Amino acid sequence: MQNSKDIEDARARSTINMKATQHFLWGGENAVKRRESIDRILSQDPVFSRARKPFLHRTDAFKRGLAITNRIFELEALHNWTREDVSCAFILVGDALPIGLHLTAFEPVLESQGSPALLEKLSSLVKRRGILGCYLQTELGHGTNVAALETTATFLPDTQEFELHSPTLTSSKWWVGALGRVSTHGVVQARLILPNGKDAGPHLFFVQLRDMENHKLMPGIIAGDVGPKFGYNTVDNGYARFDHVRIPKENMLSKFADVTPDGRYIQPPHAKLSYGGMLYIRAGMVTQGALITAKAVTIAVRYCTVRRQSEKDDQGLERQVITFPSTYSRILPILSRAYVFLLLGRTLQSSFAVHLQHLAKGDTSLLADMHAILSGLKSYATTASVADVETCRRAMGGHGFSAFSGLVSLYSDSLPSVTYEGENYVLDKQVVRAARKAVKHGIGQQQSTFAAFLTLKDPPAISEATWESPEALAGLLGWRAAALVRCDSLDDDAGFERRISKAVTEAFVANQVLDIIEMGKHNGGGPVLTAVYTLFLLSTVESALADFLEFEIFSPRDATAVRRALNTYCLHVLPEAVGLVDAFGFSDWELDSALGVYDGRVYEALWKRVADEPLNQSEDDGIYNDYIQPILKRGRAQAKL
Amino acid sequence: MQNSKDIEDARARSTINMKATQHFLWGGENAVKRRESIDRILSQDPVFSRARKPFLHRTDAFKRGLAITNRIFELEALHNWTREDVSCAFILVGDALPIGLHLTAFEPVLESQGSPALLEKLSSLVKRRGILGCYLQTELGHGTNVAALETTATFLPDTQEFELHSPTLTSSKWWVGALGRVSTHGVVQARLILPNGKDAGPHLFFVQLRDMENHKLMPGIIAGDVGPKFGYNTVDNGYARFDHVRIPKENMLSKFADVTPDGRYIQPPHAKLSYGGMLYIRAGMVTQGALITAKAVTIAVRYCTVRRQSEKDDQGLERQVITFPSTYSRILPILSRAYVFLLLGRTLQSSFAVHLQHLAKGDTSLLADMHAILSGLKSYATTASVADVETCRRAMGGHGFSAFSGLVSLYSDSLPSVTYEGENYVLDKQVVRAARKAVKHGIGQQQSTFAAFLTLKDPPAISEATWESPEALAGLLGWRAAALVRCDSLDDDAGFERRISKAVTEAFVANQVLDIIEMGKHNGGGPVLTAVYTLFLLSTVESALADFLEFEIFSPRDATAVRRALNTYCLHVLPEAVGLVDAFGFSDWELDSALGVYDGRVYEALWKRVADEPLNQSEDDGIYNDYIQPILKRGRAQAKL
Repeated sequence: MQNSKDIEDARARSTINMKATQHFLWGGENAVKRRESIDRILSQDPVFSRARKPFLHRTDAFKRGLAITNRIFELEALHNWTREDVSCAFILVGDALPIGLHLTAFEPVLESQGSPALLEKLSSLVKRRGILGCYLQTELGHGTNVAALETTATFLPDTQEFELHSPTLTSSKWWVGALGRVSTHGVVQARLILPNGKDAGPHLFFVQLRDMENHKLMPGIIAGDVGPKFGYNTVDNGYARFDHVRIPKENMLSKFADVTPDGRYIQPPHAKLSYGGMLYIRAGMVTQGALITAKAVTIAVRYCTVRRQSEKDDQGLERQVITFPSTYSRILPILSRAYVFLLLGRTLQSSFAVHLQHLAKGDTSLLADMHAILSGLKSYATTASVADVETCRRAMGGHGFSAFSGLVSLYSDSLPSVTYEGENYVLDKQVVRAARKAVKHGIGQQQSTFAAFLTLKDPPAISEATWESPEALAGLLGWRAAALVRCDSLDDDAGFERRISKAVTEAFVANQVLDIIEMGKHNGGGPVLTAVYTLFLLSTVESALADFLEFEIFSPRDATAVRRALNTYCLHVLPEAVGLVDAFGFSDWELDSALGVYDGRVYEALWKRVADEPLNQSEDDGIYNDYIQPILKRGRAQAKL
Repeated sequence: MQNSKDIEDARARSTINMKATQHFLWGGENAVKRRESIDRILSQDPVFSRARKPFLHRTDAFKRGLAITNRIFELEALHNWTREDVSCAFILVGDALPIGLHLTAFEPVLESQGSPALLEKLSSLVKRRGILGCYLQTELGHGTNVAALETTATFLPDTQEFELHSPTLTSSKWWVGALGRVSTHGVVQARLILPNGKDAGPHLFFVQLRDMENHKLMPGIIAGDVGPKFGYNTVDNGYARFDHVRIPKENMLSKFADVTPDGRYIQPPHAKLSYGGMLYIRAGMVTQGALITAKAVTIAVRYCTVRRQSEKDDQGLERQVITFPSTYSRILPILSRAYVFLLLGRTLQSSFAVHLQHLAKGDTSLLADMHAILSGLKSYATTASVADVETCRRAMGGHGFSAFSGLVSLYSDSLPSVTYEGENYVLDKQVVRAARKAVKHGIGQQQSTFAAFLTLKDPPAISEATWESPEALAGLLGWRAAALVRCDSLDDDAGFERRISKAVTEAFVANQVLDIIEMGKHNGGGPVLTAVYTLFLLSTVESALADFLEFEIFSPRDATAVRRALNTYCLHVLPEAVGLVDAFGFSDWELDSALGVYDGRVYEALWKRVADEPLNQSEDDGIYNDYIQPILKRGRAQAKL
């Protein structure tokens, strides 16, 4: 088959060191081996089969997700998996699952903010999933503006209890993942009302939601699922209303703020100490976005390599779709972003884990900067990832629309990332505020991480060499960010917040790319990867041409040169594309795409999957008799008149 | 409730002439009345209830679509509906339905290209839906490159038959709407093979697919549904393979090309006469996209008007989300596009209907231009519409992710429009080719529709008045298109085809907007609508700033002025936004959105819809016992160790 030959030829053309690149991407040989060994276990276990997945009704897809969760914990016990192994298993599965909320929201919030006494009682149960939890913050009427949440927790000194209450329809907790059916317990954001009537604002409270014997909702609680969504339909995002529900005083997460037995408020030492968990989740989202982008571009590169279309050449072959400028110029910059964000995400997660340890000790000196940078990165990386998945899908033409392409669920499940954990446009505002503050106060004093690239005084000189130099490109992006942040008249532009946030974050990422290149020199680097990073920087610069021209950093001639250089670097990377996506190391089971199969036999794969479509199981299922025949009969009768 | 008050206040603020605007948008009072009266019938008929729709499995959603189709034809007979009434009913339903392929592909192709003898036999049956048809063109291995389709139709002079055959897996017809389960007949694109072995390329053949007695597939035909998709899951896009299937000679659609009884080929008088139907479908897609955009922006404007978020003012009210620059600057340009494309689509459809009559008479003089303009418009309008729906959805924050927002199905069902009926990037190439040809040959000779704006010699002078003048803005867009088309060095930019296609089409649309303003002066116009059109032009110019700066049409100062003017016009339109979306006249039933309800009571509407979620019907449905309890039991056992 020509398809197999095309993909094998492309594979043979690649010059990268496959093993070294893969180890570099995943953070070492052990990480790669872990993925491979767990992939083998899961992909051979029928519980993890993806064959029926595209055909399931939401309820059945939800059940499948729970069965997978249960099986992973069974395997954990069977194979003595570590916490990292379990986490790797869930990443390989890739589906959005209710347990994700327990693991990444409920548990970290409880652990970082619960009192020692509460943790003593709960930690082991939470760690082993003897209770299953969720994090109830967003309300029907309030998301972004946490300060305006309406749910109340009134302290009752007589009984040493809090009374949780939902005073209005809009105070109903809403969107809470794993609340709809799964969670037995939750951590609730509620306004702390003191005995003197004072409202101390939102605080966190640990609450039992469902009975441990029969899973029925506890008295005074109404809860359920919020219904079907764009994606994430395997998660029971839920709602909950509290009708004067009492909980013991110790259930307040009181590591930082607390209430005395007689009802006086104890201030936390720093207003934003509770931000730690949120920052950690946002750092993780860069990696999640990168993984999704990497899967999407693997599928697109492989499919567009074997898909041929247009005039035949003298060998009677049509042209490989990936060789069209309008295709490769869309896909290859995405490939470069997958590389950069995967590496960046790993760096971020480890460096921020260290920062969080400082924070846990009460050291808040880096908090404002961390917060601003992660706001920008979360907004930027998730926006890019969602857009990139869709660009890959469209680059694959009609077949990209099929659920069997794998890109439909990738897109739908990644889409909410632009909204949850900080709506991206709201996060932009925070980046702008921090960057402007840094320029006003921090410049020259090195107090701010932003200072490094916001202090640039003169625009860099531009020559032909600029377009081949990662340092020069990063310098340009820094200068553009500085120019935007320092421009006073920008607020007349209603879109200025996104513009500034994007510019600042792109400059930050560009500087990180220089570090990645440096790191790569010692392991897995080489000219191809440098070309990939340069392509990343060039495509970032190209997407900002309006800024560069408007601030007269570029002449019109420079703009033309950028576009030309971008094309040149695409052509450098093009023959390596299949090798570069192979280096991500996704198995066919993990990718779950008929169009991204390793052996390139995409049409056979599509044909095979179509057989399972429920509408193809029988033509005697009543559809003809009940629905089609009446139309035809009426039509024939009318036609005879 | 504050929500009702907010929407009513906004409604009261609007100064537009509601009736006149609505009549102008829909093409007259009669069209509006027709919509209203059919809406009343459908919205009160339980077959058209949308209550269960978001919860249906694909198979049930497919059945619902067929039941709707059958009911519309029942109502047609009952109420003596005209063809326009039936069409209006399907537009009001809004769902993608298999019958759409019969009505907009099968029937027009057959009518425009079938021989008089074939039509004599079939017309009445087809018109009354005594047979149901589809159009089989795309194959598993070929979409864009029609010339390379593999299915063959070999003429057999002995029996005066054609033999249809699918020689390979990749020659399987694929994606064909209404083929999977519904169609009894189809029109097949197949390479005509003459007795002398000569391959005359793709031609059309009428084929019976299923038995009229029992709906079983005819001998030699394998067919079925291609499985779940991103959207359009209520349509049975299907596949088909032909194993030496014989059809009578008269089944060739031989109005233009034909075969003599002894097997000689008769050339059509013009190679592209068969393009007519395709052009008509593309013209219709501008209107379809506009309708979807109009619905999305209606929902977004209403919801963002009643949604309040952020610091409370002295009346204790948070800020209406639509008043944030980062919200209104996203939504209001979309509102302007909905107006422009709805009006443009109507103009186009009527003017192209006239052109098609010329074409049917063999007059092909306008064909090349029509083809190029409609290629550009189809690419541009569908790309914009899909992006705009998603922008509206995101502007609504978390609740936009709910299926009850109405935007999820709007998005999914409109998404394939960027791929079908000409993949947008492929269409861009055709626009570039035509525009360059026009510049080379047509300029000054007025032979080409493009000539009007590609012949501009000097860049227009820019002053403060430019940003308030539709004529000046249209002139700028024309000049930019001319500059791009005439630039030789552009091919170094891998994305140049999209850039040029977009510029040329935007210039064409800008000229049409001037006509729309002129038309509006006599009916339904006024300063508000002029502000809407100016906003449209400004946002088009703003999105092209990089081009304007690169070709030195703008100074950096001009770019800043454009952004400022865009913001100013957004602020002009903002107080009119609810009135402007009300003027589209969508009923709550047609919109099917809990967030876009006319009375603004969005939270009540969400709460009500959630009750129907299947996961909320019973907690004794086995999910706890089968899936959740095992996890909790294991966890508690492990926690005790």
